[in-house]
Amino acid sequence: MNADIGTDLRNSIRSIPDYPKPGIVFRDITTLLGNARAFRRAVDELVQPWAGMKIDKVAGIEARGFILGGAVAHQVSAGFVPIRKKGKLPHKTVNVAYALEYGEDIIEMHADALVAGERVVLVDDLIATGGTAEAAVKLLRQLGAEVLAACFVIDLPDLGGAEKLRKLGVPVRTLIGFEGH
Amino acid sequence: MNADIGTDLRNSIRSIPDYPKPGIVFRDITTLLGNARAFRRAVDELVQPWAGMKIDKVAGIEARGFILGGAVAHQVSAGFVPIRKKGKLPHKTVNVAYALEYGEDIIEMHADALVAGERVVLVDDLIATGGTAEAAVKLLRQLGAEVLAACFVIDLPDLGGAEKLRKLGVPVRTLIGFEGH
Repeated sequence: MNADIGTDLRNSIRSIPDYPKPGIVFRDITTLLGNARAFRRAVDELVQPWAGMKIDKVAGIEARGFILGGAVAHQVSAGFVPIRKKGKLPHKTVNVAYALEYGEDIIEMHADALVAGERVVLVDDLIATGGTAEAAVKLLRQLGAEVLAACFVIDLPDLGGAEKLRKLGVPVRTLIGFEGH
Repeated sequence: MNADIGTDLRNSIRSIPDYPKPGIVFRDITTLLGNARAFRRAVDELVQPWAGMKIDKVAGIEARGFILGGAVAHQVSAGFVPIRKKGKLPHKTVNVAYALEYGEDIIEMHADALVAGERVVLVDDLIATGGTAEAAVKLLRQLGAEVLAACFVIDLPDLGGAEKLRKLGVPVRTLIGFEGH
């Protein structure tokens, strides 16, 4: 990506020290979303490498991934598939559990959200350890989707999430990297 | 709106009887979102009356309003502002409490999400009693926003939510109405 675009987007992120706990710098994307120019640029850049390809569905991870994913789906004229926390979807679901620092979490999709062979781009705001994104890729593949790419505005490369997805054979696109976590 | 478009969108909604409890028919919008043509049409139709006007921000209500609101913001080249349940936004917030059937709920926005005088369109998937949407309008006005319109894909007119917003002086746009609740 053009370095100026990266700088422009980077400057639109608000960093909040010691949130949600001491020693953590939270990268707040709401200031980017609220900036019409930065928001449009982020959406367009996220899928730029796949812009010429047929994309059937964009899958967004609850909740901030819904905002970016909805916009990306509109941009590429694809359908949108929500990936939600357990118990929030009204029809028959498939799910994948994944480990957290303490305990585990479960994400779900509607079982009929995709048909086998559909080409899907996964979208979220940020990739850190990649636990949720990895579970999302497994969920999409469980339904037979071809995961074309996973796209995130922010990467925390020290936490290794993007590398984890690449090991699964998923091309990863990120727009801004922040050192540390 | 053109009647054919309404029919097309209506057919893309899945109705789930007795969900979340007996006697309630849940209107599931995920089948509309997953249909690329219906999703694009819904997004374009939602803001069609305001398409020529300057819109500074689109505010979306968590969580399904994030999907549609993100797409609408992209469509009209506006910024996006998330309206969230209490405790989910990392910076200084303003909030409004509203009554539920039993107890109350609270929604929040970042205090700097808007500047006074900005023109805002509110977006959510469905309006029923309108409690959350009314609270959202109050929240936006508390920060000095001009609420241009409130837009919903689905209206349950028997529950009176759209009428409640019109009484606040907010133009309301809905695409599909379902009798009952």
